[in-house]
Amino acid sequence: MSNSYGTLFKISTFGESHGPAIGVILDGCPAGLVIDEAFIQSELDRRKPGQSRITTQRKEDDSFKILSGVFEGKSTGTPIAIVIENQDQRSKDYSHIAETFRPSHADYTYEVKYGNRDYRGGGRSSARETAARVAAGAIAKLLLKQHGVSIQAYVSQVGDITTPFYTALDLSKTEDNMVRCPDPIIAEKMIAFIDEVRLERDTVGGVVTCVISNTPVGLGEPVFDKLHAELGKAMLGINAVKGFEYGSGFKGTSLRGSQHNDEFFNDGGRIRTKTNLSGGIQGGIANGEDIYFNVAFKPVATIMQDQPSIDKQGNEVTVSGKGRHDPCVVPRAVPIVEAMAALVIADFLLRARSSKVS
Amino acid sequence: MSNSYGTLFKISTFGESHGPAIGVILDGCPAGLVIDEAFIQSELDRRKPGQSRITTQRKEDDSFKILSGVFEGKSTGTPIAIVIENQDQRSKDYSHIAETFRPSHADYTYEVKYGNRDYRGGGRSSARETAARVAAGAIAKLLLKQHGVSIQAYVSQVGDITTPFYTALDLSKTEDNMVRCPDPIIAEKMIAFIDEVRLERDTVGGVVTCVISNTPVGLGEPVFDKLHAELGKAMLGINAVKGFEYGSGFKGTSLRGSQHNDEFFNDGGRIRTKTNLSGGIQGGIANGEDIYFNVAFKPVATIMQDQPSIDKQGNEVTVSGKGRHDPCVVPRAVPIVEAMAALVIADFLLRARSSKVS
Amino acid sequence: MSNSYGTLFKISTFGESHGPAIGVILDGCPAGLVIDEAFIQSELDRRKPGQSRITTQRKEDDSFKILSGVFEGKSTGTPIAIVIENQDQRSKDYSHIAETFRPSHADYTYEVKYGNRDYRGGGRSSARETAARVAAGAIAKLLLKQHGVSIQAYVSQVGDITTPFYTALDLSKTEDNMVRCPDPIIAEKMIAFIDEVRLERDTVGGVVTCVISNTPVGLGEPVFDKLHAELGKAMLGINAVKGFEYGSGFKGTSLRGSQHNDEFFNDGGRIRTKTNLSGGIQGGIANGEDIYFNVAFKPVATIMQDQPSIDKQGNEVTVSGKGRHDPCVVPRAVPIVEAMAALVIADFLLRARSSKVS
Amino acid sequence: MSNSYGTLFKISTFGESHGPAIGVILDGCPAGLVIDEAFIQSELDRRKPGQSRITTQRKEDDSFKILSGVFEGKSTGTPIAIVIENQDQRSKDYSHIAETFRPSHADYTYEVKYGNRDYRGGGRSSARETAARVAAGAIAKLLLKQHGVSIQAYVSQVGDITTPFYTALDLSKTEDNMVRCPDPIIAEKMIAFIDEVRLERDTVGGVVTCVISNTPVGLGEPVFDKLHAELGKAMLGINAVKGFEYGSGFKGTSLRGSQHNDEFFNDGGRIRTKTNLSGGIQGGIANGEDIYFNVAFKPVATIMQDQPSIDKQGNEVTVSGKGRHDPCVVPRAVPIVEAMAALVIADFLLRARSSKVS
Repeated sequence: MSNSYGTLFKISTFGESHGPAIGVILDGCPAGLVIDEAFIQSELDRRKPGQSRITTQRKEDDSFKILSGVFEGKSTGTPIAIVIENQDQRSKDYSHIAETFRPSHADYTYEVKYGNRDYRGGGRSSARETAARVAAGAIAKLLLKQHGVSIQAYVSQVGDITTPFYTALDLSKTEDNMVRCPDPIIAEKMIAFIDEVRLERDTVGGVVTCVISNTPVGLGEPVFDKLHAELGKAMLGINAVKGFEYGSGFKGTSLRGSQHNDEFFNDGGRIRTKTNLSGGIQGGIANGEDIYFNVAFKPVATIMQDQPSIDKQGNEVTVSGKGRHDPCVVPRAVPIVEAMAALVIADFLLRARSSKVS
Repeated sequence: MSNSYGTLFKISTFGESHGPAIGVILDGCPAGLVIDEAFIQSELDRRKPGQSRITTQRKEDDSFKILSGVFEGKSTGTPIAIVIENQDQRSKDYSHIAETFRPSHADYTYEVKYGNRDYRGGGRSSARETAARVAAGAIAKLLLKQHGVSIQAYVSQVGDITTPFYTALDLSKTEDNMVRCPDPIIAEKMIAFIDEVRLERDTVGGVVTCVISNTPVGLGEPVFDKLHAELGKAMLGINAVKGFEYGSGFKGTSLRGSQHNDEFFNDGGRIRTKTNLSGGIQGGIANGEDIYFNVAFKPVATIMQDQPSIDKQGNEVTVSGKGRHDPCVVPRAVPIVEAMAALVIADFLLRARSSKVS
Repeated sequence: MSNSYGTLFKISTFGESHGPAIGVILDGCPAGLVIDEAFIQSELDRRKPGQSRITTQRKEDDSFKILSGVFEGKSTGTPIAIVIENQDQRSKDYSHIAETFRPSHADYTYEVKYGNRDYRGGGRSSARETAARVAAGAIAKLLLKQHGVSIQAYVSQVGDITTPFYTALDLSKTEDNMVRCPDPIIAEKMIAFIDEVRLERDTVGGVVTCVISNTPVGLGEPVFDKLHAELGKAMLGINAVKGFEYGSGFKGTSLRGSQHNDEFFNDGGRIRTKTNLSGGIQGGIANGEDIYFNVAFKPVATIMQDQPSIDKQGNEVTVSGKGRHDPCVVPRAVPIVEAMAALVIADFLLRARSSKVS
Repeated sequence: MSNSYGTLFKISTFGESHGPAIGVILDGCPAGLVIDEAFIQSELDRRKPGQSRITTQRKEDDSFKILSGVFEGKSTGTPIAIVIENQDQRSKDYSHIAETFRPSHADYTYEVKYGNRDYRGGGRSSARETAARVAAGAIAKLLLKQHGVSIQAYVSQVGDITTPFYTALDLSKTEDNMVRCPDPIIAEKMIAFIDEVRLERDTVGGVVTCVISNTPVGLGEPVFDKLHAELGKAMLGINAVKGFEYGSGFKGTSLRGSQHNDEFFNDGGRIRTKTNLSGGIQGGIANGEDIYFNVAFKPVATIMQDQPSIDKQGNEVTVSGKGRHDPCVVPRAVPIVEAMAALVIADFLLRARSSKVS
């Protein structure tokens, strides 16, 4: 049910932060796709903890195993099951929260909803679950590559430090630094700021921007499954996300229609628009221009400070920051945003095969 | 498929702007709910065109007929079908766009996706479809009322004119003016501004804010169907929406964790939080505090001005503003936002019935 | 939810036997299909009551109206809504069952499940609902015709009177008589037998056999949505159906593997099987041979006799046969079986478009 | 997609016969259910190969591992992932079929549908996949036990050897013999017959009957998801199944309505029926009487004999019976039928929680 995403290209994830393993079943991957395992691993490596000093120091290889759905290096059309074992579990780190609700975590809401919850490391509500999405998203990317579609996300904001609009950036430089900001100067500032926040035993939020290029015209489905509505749902389903906007977004609200409309023109036989405030989507359907959107991440709730809270019985308690956590989540969120975007686009690619009678 | 929304409390809408009728099937409404038809009509009236000088002058009664699913005034558990006939169709107004792509409309994308499209008034991509959502949303509200949940949306921004945070407003005054802004002074400014824009034959965007109060703790489903992810999808599926944020939203990205965390306290036996930057949702699940979110609407694409564009054959043409359109969509969007929110919450109420073994 | 069928080619029906109207939304019909309204009507006419002396004498034109999804005679890819008004409702005929549970009807189970039910003519549980399926099934047939697929059902059994295996029959003669049995001699016997049963104020069951020819190899999806599993569900969802078997069916259980296996051979480059005990489906997927199956219908529960029963309060009462009913349901079931089969195959045709990567 | 079953209590299976593992994700199991691992193993043991001389001699422990969703012995409401490693794979046994289509297997249809298939042991089309269903079904049974529902299947036919109607049998004796027939005399005959067939290097089909007792009134959903329609789909999705009938089934077709109707009576305040030709289901909804149904299994397609066939290139070849297979599938099918029935009923139990407004 709620642990599945997609209509035709569909993933179902499972696993808790400190259980034996997490994983994903991908059902609906068309047969005949070359499954490049090295690429899947490289995507997992972009998300994995401990990759730099500005990320959590939990040690996980995030090496994966494919249990089904691939034969002689290619997909067979049957479910692709991928398992990632949890290694560095240190569950005792969490015994202190068995009875306590950490502020702005899911402890309290899971407790009321389910009665029985795996409190270790946040259990199912941990962002560790997103590794499964990244693995499946890597396969989606392999499918998209065949169709010429590319997806690139990057960190566009940390605290109040922001980048210019994406068209003024060289996105190919995104992976050149640990904060995943394509502008090297701004990246340095962001890293310095995260270091500062980390030393203050605090955390800070940020924004990830994502650009999807070269989508075929016609992706997206009216009226509830508009392309941006699915992108929005997919992004808002990532841990710590508080907002989503595409194209002109919230800033577009103060424009006039005469400023906002994107003029069509004939670009040597191909219909294009001169501006792209629409963000590549009109009426919920891709028009072939770049799709771009922003995803807002709140500051990580776990801070290395004492905080007042209450326990299950309603008593006042102090929650002490323990465990190993990210001072700023956005650098590791970049591959997660890309993965979810890839899953959305792959699904719409398959759905679009039924738009016309032949 | 994509014309349906919801898992257990599920709507499927149909209809084009200038076809014989639009409508909705609501499947999954529990039996025994008193269906107050006057209330449904009053909700439709809030959305209908021609209600004031700042909305489109298209004349539609938006009177509806229930074809099934209600017996002796109560729901029977079988599908509730509601039909709203289109009256003031004036399809000739649209003959000029049969071959032409209006800027920032869905004309071009539908043409490529489907080959055959009903161009009259935007056909299926017209916001007229949202009347069906409002009718179904009214029934969702009736269900929510039984559970004590209330939903109130209002206009919080038009152009650059904004209201204070919702806790400083008296939301009960929202319907007192034609722009649906609860602050009467700011409402006057917004109306004056919309009038100005209208006289310039232009349009302007805005923001609708929505507050959901008194939800039971536990609504929302991990991990993809988080409460705010479904709210986001539902809102982004409304015509002209460019962004969604809840709780601290985009502004929260620049805060520190120590500022952003909501401290729990024991409020006479009930667990509450002192602040509510979480926006009533933690880990994707309602914690009982107010749920609040912002929805960004772009300026309406149809403007009463000549605009350059191209036709199906790729020739340069001029699109002249005709038809009857809203200079600013947010006043009429208020009941639509509420309707979609009600549908989301009603669905999660039913889904939550299966959270525990008994 | 449960009032919808299909994955990509999806119908949602609504309506009660004696409400204002019944109808269907078809979502997912690809754009560009010519919608032949005369054909839809002819299919409804095959199902409609009062068509001969061996069917119920309720008078319904079953004329329909398309409210959306068709423009200039072709599908647009948006939902096709079809409404059929109820004309000859005579609801007073049913006032006697408001408080009484008719034997082997759905009165009791609906009462317990929902509390509030439309008892008139069985309400939602009436077979009148199947008219909506036939209308949508007609559109599915139009799509299948484009792909060369044909579907033909016929009455193969009434009481103990049976036809030979379908390959010994000329199915083109099915519509030549009122019982829809392609063998004219056997048809006469069936009709005489139904007349006899009718005069005894009783009812009798029967079997409808259906043959689907010329399906592309590859339709059907492992492992839960096997082609025959979906056909089975679709048939068992028709009122009064008690069983489904395909290929060798129940008789095949007593055969040896060496007798049952269908030998492959190369038929001029096309792979075929010499026998077809598989019923055209192997591993849940069509192999290109004829798909054939049997659907068992029980005798209609409404008989023109007094029967003992109980009322809501548990008191003993007598139920008198009133209303207008079929002495044998299978002649009118033929187009319903075809419609559901067409919906199943159309859905799998679209789903098969995603089997391979390109 | 097609590898998932259920609406609220939903399973997704994965795995091929000779891949590293098979398994299942169960999403939607309510929190708080005690997960009795010994019981799950005992159910797997009933299905596992090599359990007697009349089953395949492939050796698999079918020991399982729970990777998620269970904490301190109870379900947490999050996905329960179960993995069963394949041990005795002997893939070389199947190299002979890489290029050849075995008669009445899925080799040919998978080849055409997917292009790339795991031919080893039938790959995804192998009945080995059903072990995953049995594991999930065991959890469904644990849930049903809490609601007092019991499910018992047994072998009612092998070849032409049949048992009397279930009410004349002592179903508690079903597990007393290796063929799982509750009548010890008939069981002996069945076993002797299977031995005979096995020695002839042939196979034979049979029927499994299943009885579900003590279901609450109201399970099942109109109109497409009737209780028996879902049971039918679930059973027809099991490998080698050719037919499904419930209640009076195919035999009921030759009865009169006056014979077939089940008379209601007041059984000390509880409404019951004197007879039960309805098979416990009226209008698609459980009426509280025993639900019983028959499932027809064809003879296993793999026989230890030479059979003519063709290869991928269309050349004539001989297929020799190799590998280790069951001479008759029904004894091992008994727990599979029960598992699927349990999954269906558990799903409807949860769905029924939304039937009424409160």
